[in-house]
Amino acid sequence: MGDDAAVLRAADGRVVASTDLLVEGRHFRRDWSTPRDVGIKAAAQNLADIAAMGAAPTAILVGLAAPGGLPVDWVLDMMRGMVTECQRAGAAVAGGDISGADNVMLGVTALGDLGGRQPVTRRGARPGDQVAVSGRIGCSAAGLALLEAGHSAGSLPPDLAELIQAHLRPRPDYSAGPQAAMAGATAMIDVSDGLLADLGHIGAASGVSVDVWTSSLPVTDAVRSAAALLGADWLEWALAGGEDHALAATFPATTVLTQNWTVIGSVQQGAGVLVDSLVRRGPAGWDHFR
Amino acid sequence: MGDDAAVLRAADGRVVASTDLLVEGRHFRRDWSTPRDVGIKAAAQNLADIAAMGAAPTAILVGLAAPGGLPVDWVLDMMRGMVTECQRAGAAVAGGDISGADNVMLGVTALGDLGGRQPVTRRGARPGDQVAVSGRIGCSAAGLALLEAGHSAGSLPPDLAELIQAHLRPRPDYSAGPQAAMAGATAMIDVSDGLLADLGHIGAASGVSVDVWTSSLPVTDAVRSAAALLGADWLEWALAGGEDHALAATFPATTVLTQNWTVIGSVQQGAGVLVDSLVRRGPAGWDHFR
Repeated sequence: MGDDAAVLRAADGRVVASTDLLVEGRHFRRDWSTPRDVGIKAAAQNLADIAAMGAAPTAILVGLAAPGGLPVDWVLDMMRGMVTECQRAGAAVAGGDISGADNVMLGVTALGDLGGRQPVTRRGARPGDQVAVSGRIGCSAAGLALLEAGHSAGSLPPDLAELIQAHLRPRPDYSAGPQAAMAGATAMIDVSDGLLADLGHIGAASGVSVDVWTSSLPVTDAVRSAAALLGADWLEWALAGGEDHALAATFPATTVLTQNWTVIGSVQQGAGVLVDSLVRRGPAGWDHFR
Repeated sequence: MGDDAAVLRAADGRVVASTDLLVEGRHFRRDWSTPRDVGIKAAAQNLADIAAMGAAPTAILVGLAAPGGLPVDWVLDMMRGMVTECQRAGAAVAGGDISGADNVMLGVTALGDLGGRQPVTRRGARPGDQVAVSGRIGCSAAGLALLEAGHSAGSLPPDLAELIQAHLRPRPDYSAGPQAAMAGATAMIDVSDGLLADLGHIGAASGVSVDVWTSSLPVTDAVRSAAALLGADWLEWALAGGEDHALAATFPATTVLTQNWTVIGSVQQGAGVLVDSLVRRGPAGWDHFR
């Protein structure tokens, strides 16, 4: 801090780097998210990209653009959220930039270290591999749907309130990334656009087809309860909802996975994403099918 | 490209990293700057921060937020400008992110390699050091003043048109940063806020006073011509104008500097920035004194 640039350790001799922009009104709403939520989420989504390469996050750099009327306390609480999430990931806030703007915008860059491992890209999935996710899916989409329906965490039972928390403050398991790399993951991605869309990225990059088994998805009872409450489709949240920042990865069929990974499908020859072995992808990523 | 994050060489075992945000209407105007200009400037100001640490730029990551109506050609030309400037610096565009927003915003992160050298911070200036700048100063401020007065490059003689180019497309000498580090620079900074302000950062960080000699400043005849044309003060442009992205550094008094560096002052015991050995700093950075 206080120099033109930060100097960071890169013991591996390589550095993993990812950048994201978060724009008020598009990626967060100040009436839904506390500043701490915004800081946690901005850090988490970038740190998860590092973990998805099989790397351990080391640092983030933060650019903040904000209107002059933004309270200093908002900025400080947002930064505290970032620091908290960085600590959870074993990383540090190493530098940044501040600027004026009409809306709040954050530019976050995360750096990470591979610890001598090869990076896990999207390109290595092979027919016969198993497909697995670390963490839950659909929680963030369920939480967003509850917010959009006018609910707030305070007005809901704890299990549903947690879904709103999952949307506002994703909690990626960063250690699952390096763990998957060490276990021999052939491809990996951070589930940010939605499970089918992100598995589609792996399929396209690897030149394979991915089949997802809906009965195996790690969807919690709370997500099903929220769907019942709203008259919504939990499977749509699980397959098309993004922002859970779970990791999805492919592994050789013989790899025995640890408990935090759930096998949800398989890799096959071909192209595209199948759901329960049926072609279900429409122009928008997937078609409703119930 | 095409993965969650980029994997970049960091042969030194450390990585130098800096991030900046550029907001339309504040850091650039689409009616003054071509998209290529915007790309060049966005890259240049970040790459210069890397050089100012004594490091060689290796890569940039680019976050772009833009309204849906922004022509694709604008984005492509802007990216071409970034690629061009990165090539000039020996760096590559390694990754990025794209998002919607009401205005064009860029979040640029630059990375660099120290090649085994110690970073040159703002903290090492010592009484007796000489102060030098690499490159010209005042050109960007002169160009901005010409634009603000309604001039354009096409309506001016070539020497004045070049000042507008200097504002729209700064051309930092990136090699001067590692060169200064190898020559033993004790402190260094990228002149972005203005010469006095940035030397003030070195003075404050190093616990010393910096004296600037106005008769030694590398101010071109074109800058003086522009000041005469506009009835403006070229010295104010040189001392307070920013965005030239020249490098300012301090060196031991005995160091013989190469031709691209101009000695413009000396480091003394004390605090604050002096101009021709007189205290001239006001609350806004410096006081007019003629």
